[in-house]
Amino acid sequence: MNLEQLDTPAAIIDIARMQHNIDRMQTRMNALGVTFRPHVKTTKCADVVRAQIAAGARGITVSTLKEAEEFFAAGVTDILYAVGMVPAKLPRAMALKKKGCDLKIVVDNMAAASAIVEYGKHVNDTFEVWLEIDTDGHRSGLAPDDDALIAIGHVLQQGGIEVGGVMTHAGSSYELNDHEALAVLAEQERAGCVRAAERLRAAGIACRTVSVGSTPTALAAQHLEGVTEVRAGVYVMFDLVMANVGVCDSSDIALSVLTSVIGHQPEKGWVIVDAGWMAMSRDRGTSKQTRDYGYGLACALDGAPLEGCELVGANQEHGILAVDNRDELAVRFPIGVKLRILPNHACATGAQYPEYHGLSSDGSTVAWPRFHGW
Amino acid sequence: MNLEQLDTPAAIIDIARMQHNIDRMQTRMNALGVTFRPHVKTTKCADVVRAQIAAGARGITVSTLKEAEEFFAAGVTDILYAVGMVPAKLPRAMALKKKGCDLKIVVDNMAAASAIVEYGKHVNDTFEVWLEIDTDGHRSGLAPDDDALIAIGHVLQQGGIEVGGVMTHAGSSYELNDHEALAVLAEQERAGCVRAAERLRAAGIACRTVSVGSTPTALAAQHLEGVTEVRAGVYVMFDLVMANVGVCDSSDIALSVLTSVIGHQPEKGWVIVDAGWMAMSRDRGTSKQTRDYGYGLACALDGAPLEGCELVGANQEHGILAVDNRDELAVRFPIGVKLRILPNHACATGAQYPEYHGLSSDGSTVAWPRFHGW
Repeated sequence: MNLEQLDTPAAIIDIARMQHNIDRMQTRMNALGVTFRPHVKTTKCADVVRAQIAAGARGITVSTLKEAEEFFAAGVTDILYAVGMVPAKLPRAMALKKKGCDLKIVVDNMAAASAIVEYGKHVNDTFEVWLEIDTDGHRSGLAPDDDALIAIGHVLQQGGIEVGGVMTHAGSSYELNDHEALAVLAEQERAGCVRAAERLRAAGIACRTVSVGSTPTALAAQHLEGVTEVRAGVYVMFDLVMANVGVCDSSDIALSVLTSVIGHQPEKGWVIVDAGWMAMSRDRGTSKQTRDYGYGLACALDGAPLEGCELVGANQEHGILAVDNRDELAVRFPIGVKLRILPNHACATGAQYPEYHGLSSDGSTVAWPRFHGW
Repeated sequence: MNLEQLDTPAAIIDIARMQHNIDRMQTRMNALGVTFRPHVKTTKCADVVRAQIAAGARGITVSTLKEAEEFFAAGVTDILYAVGMVPAKLPRAMALKKKGCDLKIVVDNMAAASAIVEYGKHVNDTFEVWLEIDTDGHRSGLAPDDDALIAIGHVLQQGGIEVGGVMTHAGSSYELNDHEALAVLAEQERAGCVRAAERLRAAGIACRTVSVGSTPTALAAQHLEGVTEVRAGVYVMFDLVMANVGVCDSSDIALSVLTSVIGHQPEKGWVIVDAGWMAMSRDRGTSKQTRDYGYGLACALDGAPLEGCELVGANQEHGILAVDNRDELAVRFPIGVKLRILPNHACATGAQYPEYHGLSSDGSTVAWPRFHGW
C-alpha cells in the first residue's frame, strides 16, 4: 500500500527520518561515552524499538508495566520501569521478573521503599531498585542533598535490596528554546544526579548506574562525566514542540498524520479534513511556545509544509484548516485530496492509533502495530 | 473485582449514573415527540450502546466507518455515518451495506455527491444520503438557504440516490453556559434544519428525516416541531465541560479515572498520582470555561469531590495534584491510596482506554471492552 491507497486518518512514520534520528542520538551518546536506554513510551511499537536496539541502544525505559510486559514478550530483557512503584503493582512486576525479565523499579519515598522490602521478604525474591532524583523541580524525585535519599538507600540495602542506580529526568527542558539554556539545564541534570550517586556511595551504597535524560538535554549536554547512561524518548520521531525547543527541524519529524479533505467552507476560508483531535490528539503543546502550530503543521502528501495554512481547530473527527487565499481554496484542496500533518507531540498523537504505517523511500508502507492501555 | 483490586489507571463507569443519564435523555426525547439516535463515538462500547437501545434509542450515529463496522457486528443495523463522505471511503462503506447494514452517509458538497452518484452507477447499488446543514457556523455543512443545497439534492435524486434526510449539529453549544442562550441556539438549530428540509421538499426532494442535536441543545430545546430525530453523544457519561455548560451536575458524571498516589513533593504541595495525560487525555476543555478544572476533578474512592485539591499538571504517566494544606499532604494521601478523577471531556478520556470497568452499586466491576482506531 502506498499513501494514496491508505484509509485516512492514518499515522505514518517516515522510516528514513526515523533512522536518521536514531543514528544521530546513538552517535552522540557514543561520543559522550555513555550507554543509551531509549524510552519506548513514545511509540510502544516493537518495530521502532528493534531499530533503536540495532543502532546500539542498551535496554529500554518504560512508563507502564504493560510496556514492560509487551517488550519483554518481544525479546527485550533489560527494562527500567521509570514511574514510582506503589505496593499494589509489586505482584505484577514480580510476575515479570519471575519470567526472566531484568526489571528495575524506581522509588522516591520511604513508604514505597519499605513496602518493597516487606514484599521481598514475603515472596523471598527482590527487585533491583533505583532512586529517583529531582534535578529541576518539575515532577517527582528526591533532591540530591535530601537526607531521605540516604535513609531510603539504607532501608533498601538493609532489607536485602540492591540499590542499582539513581535516575533523573529534566523534563523542564521542554520549556526552553535556546541551546545555551539547554546546555545549562543538562549540566544541572548531570551534576545533580552524579551528586546523589556520590552521596549514596559515600554512605556505603554501591549505586552502579547514573541515569539522566530528556531529548533536549541529551542533545545539549557538553559532557556527561559521572553519568553511565542516558534516556530519551521523543527524539525517535521528534515533533513540533521539539522544533520549537530548537533540537530538531520540522524536516526531521518522522511522524505525520495522513488525512483527506472532506469539505469546504469557502466563506470562512476553511478546508475540512478528517483529522480531528482523535487523529491528532488534544495536545496543544506549542500553544505557549515561540510558534503556535494549532493542531499541527499541514504538509502536502510528499511531506513539504504548505504555506498559508493553519490547522486552527479540531472536533473529534473533523479538523479545520484555515487557508489564507479563500478564493483558491476548493481548487487547491479538492474533495478527497490527501495531506499530511506533523504533530505537536509525537507521544500523544501516536497513542491515538492501533498501528503506524512505516513509509519507505520507494513510497511503499508496512503496518507496524502498537499497543495501548495499561 | 472491586475498585481497590483494579490496577491503576483505569476507566470506571458508574452504571447507576449512566442509566440515569440515559433515562433522562430518552424521557425528554419521548416528551418532545422525536426518536433518539445516540452518537456512539463517546464510548465506542457495545455494553453502553445496548443500554441506550434498551431505553428506547432508534439506531445509532457514528463518526468513523470502524464504528459502523463494529456496531453492525454487534447487531445494530440502522447507522448514520455523520462525517462527510469522500470517494475513497465508498468501497468500505458499500461492503458494510452489502452485508445488510442500513448505512446512511452524509455530504455537504457537489464533488462528493457526484462521486456517490458515479460510484452507485459503477457498482449498481446506492446509499441513502443525508445532506449536512450548517446552523451555527462552527464546522461543516451547507447553509439552510444555500442554492447548492437544492442543486446537490437534484444531482443525487437524478442519479438514483434517495435523499433520506437533513442533519445538523449545533456544536457551538459547548461554548455557552446558560439555559436561555442554549434554548435560543436549540431553536436556531431546529429552525435551520427544518428550513433546509422544507426547501428540499418544495423542490421535489422527499427528505423524510430531519435530524438535529448536540447534548446541550437536546437538553435545552423547548419544542422540536418539524424535527423527526435527535442525536447526542456525551450525555451518556457527561463531563466537566458539560457541567460548566450547565446541563449536568458533577454528581451526574458517570466516567471517572481510578488512580493511585505514587509520590509526594511536600515542599511544593504536590501529590503525584499515576493518572497523567495518557490516562486523562490532553483535553483541557474547561480551560476557557467558568471553572477551570485543570486535568480533572479529584474525588475520593467513593466519588465525593475532594476539597482543596487541583490536578494542575500532567506528564505522560504522572499527574500533579496540588493540595492546599501541604503539612497534611502525606497523611491525607498516603502512598498507594486510590482516588477517582472526573474528566474534562468523556469522549477524549474514554479513548485512552481499551476497556471500561462498569461499577455496580454493590461495588463490583465488570470489564466492558471498547475499541479504537479507524
